[in-house]
Amino acid sequence: MPARLIDSFATTGALADVFSDEAVVGAMLRFEAALAKAQARLGIVPQAAADAIAGIDGLDGSRFSQEARASATLAIPFVKKLTARVREVSPEAAGFVHWGATSQDVLDTALVLLLREARAILAADQARLEGLLRELSDRHSSTMMLARTVLQPAPPTTFGYKVAGWFGAIHRSWRGLSKAFDEALVLQFGGACGTLAAYGDGGPELAEAVARELDLRVPDVPWHAHRDRLAALVAHCGIYSGSLAKVARDIALLMQAEIGEVSERGGGSSAMPNKRNPAASVVAMAAAAGVPPLVAGFLASMPQEHERAAGGWQSEWPAVAGAVQATGSTLAAVVDAIGGLTVNTDRMRANLAAQSAVFAEKAVMLLAPRMGRAAAQSLVTSAAAGPSLRDGLAHVLTPEEFEALERPEDYLGAAETFRRRLLEDSECP
Amino acid sequence: MPARLIDSFATTGALADVFSDEAVVGAMLRFEAALAKAQARLGIVPQAAADAIAGIDGLDGSRFSQEARASATLAIPFVKKLTARVREVSPEAAGFVHWGATSQDVLDTALVLLLREARAILAADQARLEGLLRELSDRHSSTMMLARTVLQPAPPTTFGYKVAGWFGAIHRSWRGLSKAFDEALVLQFGGACGTLAAYGDGGPELAEAVARELDLRVPDVPWHAHRDRLAALVAHCGIYSGSLAKVARDIALLMQAEIGEVSERGGGSSAMPNKRNPAASVVAMAAAAGVPPLVAGFLASMPQEHERAAGGWQSEWPAVAGAVQATGSTLAAVVDAIGGLTVNTDRMRANLAAQSAVFAEKAVMLLAPRMGRAAAQSLVTSAAAGPSLRDGLAHVLTPEEFEALERPEDYLGAAETFRRRLLEDSECP
Amino acid sequence: MPARLIDSFATTGALADVFSDEAVVGAMLRFEAALAKAQARLGIVPQAAADAIAGIDGLDGSRFSQEARASATLAIPFVKKLTARVREVSPEAAGFVHWGATSQDVLDTALVLLLREARAILAADQARLEGLLRELSDRHSSTMMLARTVLQPAPPTTFGYKVAGWFGAIHRSWRGLSKAFDEALVLQFGGACGTLAAYGDGGPELAEAVARELDLRVPDVPWHAHRDRLAALVAHCGIYSGSLAKVARDIALLMQAEIGEVSERGGGSSAMPNKRNPAASVVAMAAAAGVPPLVAGFLASMPQEHERAAGGWQSEWPAVAGAVQATGSTLAAVVDAIGGLTVNTDRMRANLAAQSAVFAEKAVMLLAPRMGRAAAQSLVTSAAAGPSLRDGLAHVLTPEEFEALERPEDYLGAAETFRRRLLEDSECP
Amino acid sequence: MPARLIDSFATTGALADVFSDEAVVGAMLRFEAALAKAQARLGIVPQAAADAIAGIDGLDGSRFSQEARASATLAIPFVKKLTARVREVSPEAAGFVHWGATSQDVLDTALVLLLREARAILAADQARLEGLLRELSDRHSSTMMLARTVLQPAPPTTFGYKVAGWFGAIHRSWRGLSKAFDEALVLQFGGACGTLAAYGDGGPELAEAVARELDLRVPDVPWHAHRDRLAALVAHCGIYSGSLAKVARDIALLMQAEIGEVSERGGGSSAMPNKRNPAASVVAMAAAAGVPPLVAGFLASMPQEHERAAGGWQSEWPAVAGAVQATGSTLAAVVDAIGGLTVNTDRMRANLAAQSAVFAEKAVMLLAPRMGRAAAQSLVTSAAAGPSLRDGLAHVLTPEEFEALERPEDYLGAAETFRRRLLEDSECP
Repeated sequence: MPARLIDSFATTGALADVFSDEAVVGAMLRFEAALAKAQARLGIVPQAAADAIAGIDGLDGSRFSQEARASATLAIPFVKKLTARVREVSPEAAGFVHWGATSQDVLDTALVLLLREARAILAADQARLEGLLRELSDRHSSTMMLARTVLQPAPPTTFGYKVAGWFGAIHRSWRGLSKAFDEALVLQFGGACGTLAAYGDGGPELAEAVARELDLRVPDVPWHAHRDRLAALVAHCGIYSGSLAKVARDIALLMQAEIGEVSERGGGSSAMPNKRNPAASVVAMAAAAGVPPLVAGFLASMPQEHERAAGGWQSEWPAVAGAVQATGSTLAAVVDAIGGLTVNTDRMRANLAAQSAVFAEKAVMLLAPRMGRAAAQSLVTSAAAGPSLRDGLAHVLTPEEFEALERPEDYLGAAETFRRRLLEDSECP
Repeated sequence: MPARLIDSFATTGALADVFSDEAVVGAMLRFEAALAKAQARLGIVPQAAADAIAGIDGLDGSRFSQEARASATLAIPFVKKLTARVREVSPEAAGFVHWGATSQDVLDTALVLLLREARAILAADQARLEGLLRELSDRHSSTMMLARTVLQPAPPTTFGYKVAGWFGAIHRSWRGLSKAFDEALVLQFGGACGTLAAYGDGGPELAEAVARELDLRVPDVPWHAHRDRLAALVAHCGIYSGSLAKVARDIALLMQAEIGEVSERGGGSSAMPNKRNPAASVVAMAAAAGVPPLVAGFLASMPQEHERAAGGWQSEWPAVAGAVQATGSTLAAVVDAIGGLTVNTDRMRANLAAQSAVFAEKAVMLLAPRMGRAAAQSLVTSAAAGPSLRDGLAHVLTPEEFEALERPEDYLGAAETFRRRLLEDSECP
Repeated sequence: MPARLIDSFATTGALADVFSDEAVVGAMLRFEAALAKAQARLGIVPQAAADAIAGIDGLDGSRFSQEARASATLAIPFVKKLTARVREVSPEAAGFVHWGATSQDVLDTALVLLLREARAILAADQARLEGLLRELSDRHSSTMMLARTVLQPAPPTTFGYKVAGWFGAIHRSWRGLSKAFDEALVLQFGGACGTLAAYGDGGPELAEAVARELDLRVPDVPWHAHRDRLAALVAHCGIYSGSLAKVARDIALLMQAEIGEVSERGGGSSAMPNKRNPAASVVAMAAAAGVPPLVAGFLASMPQEHERAAGGWQSEWPAVAGAVQATGSTLAAVVDAIGGLTVNTDRMRANLAAQSAVFAEKAVMLLAPRMGRAAAQSLVTSAAAGPSLRDGLAHVLTPEEFEALERPEDYLGAAETFRRRLLEDSECP
Repeated sequence: MPARLIDSFATTGALADVFSDEAVVGAMLRFEAALAKAQARLGIVPQAAADAIAGIDGLDGSRFSQEARASATLAIPFVKKLTARVREVSPEAAGFVHWGATSQDVLDTALVLLLREARAILAADQARLEGLLRELSDRHSSTMMLARTVLQPAPPTTFGYKVAGWFGAIHRSWRGLSKAFDEALVLQFGGACGTLAAYGDGGPELAEAVARELDLRVPDVPWHAHRDRLAALVAHCGIYSGSLAKVARDIALLMQAEIGEVSERGGGSSAMPNKRNPAASVVAMAAAAGVPPLVAGFLASMPQEHERAAGGWQSEWPAVAGAVQATGSTLAAVVDAIGGLTVNTDRMRANLAAQSAVFAEKAVMLLAPRMGRAAAQSLVTSAAAGPSLRDGLAHVLTPEEFEALERPEDYLGAAETFRRRLLEDSECP
């Protein structure tokens, strides 16, 4: 299913599928089937009833969203329709649909099941991106370029180190998100108010059995009114997409015509036949911009009333689904950008050569032992402000010294050490 | 078209329609048709070409969202497909599709056309809500109830004044939003970079002509990189939905079983047959919670680069469409809540009678002239902290005085004056 | 008072003063003095009491913030201390401090008084900025430069038009903010629950009298639980600072060494003696980034419970004061940036000359009538992708035609018309 | 130092101290001292110079915030002033101040040092809160009360389980925040652009030495442009304060006069002598409301340009300091609320007894085997809607059965099991 046009950059086709109506209903059905099967195994409902319930493999949900407004929960029209469908097969079984469960059990668990699908999509793209970035960094381990701070030239770095920095941040952020997925992808099963009272003292055992059916972990207790695990998932989407968007921003800036150090496969313009835009980076930035607000929205909804909220809980689905989709869209776009990146090493070197003033710091370090730092700093500052650093320093540096001064290879410090640390030992804090 | 299940409370069916793929493509086609017709009228393109272009009344956009990612703009696949369709009718006309326009012209103007539809839906619901609130306030102009501050009992008010307060805030907020719609619903037409250079010096005249076709106003200049008008629209959605959600919160609180002063038509529970939930209020709060984050997202995207942004602009559609839909969902839910509200005036009076301590302020005002305010305050504070205010004040107030003290009708101050001001003269600042 | 270091860019010294402890206590005292004087005039309290209360011109508030936590309101320790101070002067007068008023009356009105001070500071800077921008735009009405869309070269524009675009957005946004100030700067006076019951039916008259003392308008009714006017003020801070930050972003981008079209007075680096950073623009962007979140926070707090909120209201002060201060800091920084801007018209022209491909659109418009648009677009696209547009079009354009093609003066469309509209008729929608 | 009045609830005195001007300057001095001492140990600067630099134990920073605006960095005026002060002691040493370091090294590391102080304050309060909650939960392990879902009565739970749920969410959220502190509290040391080039190949060794001086860990590489670790810290502040605020909301709701199940030590009102407000809970909610927006602001600033951002980085301090302070204020207020909580077990039992309809679910579970679930649900729904569940079910349940039905002790399911899990095995996922 393609993304809606209005959401073109806020999701991808694959992720739009994950949260489609069919998928939502499917996940809700899987919960009810798992509940019935587990209850049958424990002798709570007849096996025949469980078979009938688990046999329903699709429901027409086209009126659910409208009907849900009347009860403030999608579960009401869903359970009603499911019960009606089961009744067609077995009137007796209909009495056991959703037996002892509550809205939140089916809705939260369904969301968890959808998120598990989404995670797999993200994980695959992340793996691909890590490979692309490693390779790009290795290939350019000694490609010299200007660093840039506050959007102004700074001493040299290597493109390989820059890419490794991207890799490191993305790797760490993914690890955080991945752990948040691990912790959040757990069963919700608490019954009317979190005690599973409808099952006497058999609730915990039943919870284990339901979870087994769904291949989910059981948390220590139901989490109906405590949304911290989901909050962490959403928050880490924000961190991860932020780390991804930094790459996109860097690429878009490096691709400016006057800089021209990298180039995306790019996209055209409807007015200008000549244009080659940083299209993937733009999509990534547009998608990523949508995530932080959703994080804030989710966090603001956390103080939920008593054993089930009046508003906060019900506001979560669009926030969670939106955050995960926008994150996945950002990721897919960065994969596109990196996968199609052309690096113009000549322009990198030329841009660096045009900014000899970036060696001013180095000149200070060199001259300070000779004339004191204050004098060195003062001299170099005037020289750097003049037309040419070389002329300004001609009386204190020999031509050979000046040439050495401007050799970027000699002013990379720990760039390569750091680059390797980022790639090789990516588990370091 | 029903709302997606994942968005059940974040939009309504009617508003989901407004931003559907069909509607988006339709609005884009309307722009292109208007452009061509205006250009024909001014002799810029042949009339036959304009007729051919304007004759296309639908396009299959099912691949647009995927294709848009390659160019970071929906306009590229759209114009390509439209051109192909026109070419089937008239190869010559195909050369005049989107003549001299740019992506942003068609996309921004299409958004404006969609927003005009959305506004009409909101305006109708707002009119209905104003009627309901006026009537409710008038009916309960002398229905006494506890005011409540910081979730604790306060001196009496009337339900009519409380409702009028809701009315006033919603009325003012709608006025702000309505004005923002007025200012934002203008043509976008600037060509490649906002100069309309492709039309020589004929740009402004053409802009007028295009706007006439679409029944839109022409702004002073194109607004491609200046998003303040849209920002105001989105921000006022946040203010308006905030004013609406306050009503929902009040209703949900008043409907708590232990308070029981109002009751919604309500919705059930999938676990508890007895439950009657403040369903519409919950939907309203859930929907409204989604708006402030989108406002922040839109505002954060305002510093857009140069003549068209790299990311900020492209992030706007989901934010704008999302904010307007969530606002409309909030509104529709508040209409439901108010439309179906039962007021339990007996409970209001009983709850008030149970809190005689709320007349402590009145007792202080009464006793202060007799014993000094400090002494009065001290005496009343002890009395109010004791088991009964009456007993605690028995030595200073006669039974008649105490009875008068507790008469809520005598301690309403300007409630009715204020209530009338809110309803009658709603244009006051 | 200087801004705190941690807030260096989030406020200015002048605005930090506006919200200082001394100013807060002073504004609260002004409310209490106005209340007492108005009550004396209407015979509600003795004139001597009013004189004693109004005579207190300062309080030591150093323990208020700690004490306020115990009651969730700053008004409690304030009124207690004020009463104690008045008692020292006149025990009788002490009984009339804060007579019939409530926490929210003094706190909301004090905030309004502070905001009035802040507004004056903003208005002065805005006036200065408008002057600077007008002059800059006029001076560069025919300074040719590249427009840039999606961070890539686009057809030419003028720097004067670009600056006028900044002017227009800032002017409109200020107008919106200014109107929001007008509407929000009103008295809060409602008593315990918004009815002014403590004054019998004299509340409205007393409100008028209090407002007169403070030179504030009286709103139709108290606004204790309805925060839409303040919300609009905060939201319009977000819009206005967004419009300002767009200028800062453009400047920082134009000041990149490889582009070099403008230059700020700039700031240095602690490591690099050569650096000249877009310091004012950076401060502006850093300050502006703080505003949208505060807008969202304020909006999210709008659904306030009943007649006074439990949390939402109490969260407003830092949001409002923070938003206004960050807005003022953004503004002051943009004034600095524009006031010290050097424009390098040579670099503008050179950068434009280096991008002849931006005339591709113009070439299509020129060639389309000769060969059909599809053929023209196809030919120009190949030519633009090649090493030189000129070579690629050599077989279809004469050297004279090509020279004309590349003349930016001839491809400015309505730039000057639009520029003038923005400056001359800035009241247009 | 007390909190500023405008921030009364947004911080605490202790946390305001942590981020005071004196503390900021102190932390910056500690970085410079550590740098100099480490450099002396490695023979990079003379020991005497290091001694002179490390000997400066205070600077007058009263003009720093104003001066910082001119360079967009606090480090410039700071280093200038420090150098001047060192020069007074030793002109030679002045040349070695900040040797080879950059603004971001001192500013980021100073922030880390401040955050370490803040963490200790939070950790102490968290430990206290855990103790209070454990004890409260244990004391009320069999205190029966209504659960409440969607602000309506639900089947019974125990207050001990409710409190344990608070404990669990807070405990998990603190663990997440604590881990984020662990990861973020690392040295920043990268020199002009992250390569430490000024130190040749000695950068990494010097970094280790500087970190040792400050008792900080060294990260794999400098993190100047990659802010994910700080982002996680801020985001987990949002999650933790959200979990805390849920407690505050529950308390404020339970303390409503009509419910009266718990009571805070409470605070008064400036108008109403009788009032006892949920003051600490209100402070907690007000403080917590400020955090999510700051999280969003921080996340939105993550896509920072190249090797040092132009705006994003410079916007971080108020967001980080604000988030940590508001979190600490929330925590302190919840400690106050829980520490002073009175539990009214009689009201809990009475409120439960008044809502026999909450046993409707139980009645369905009981009757379903006898008459089929559909019939049972239908019968119970009508009965629950009527004046009395007992009357409505009189024909199907004996008085003994009905009495058993309404016994809350018999309908607690796994409440105690879950309660113990939360307290005993709080390390479970």
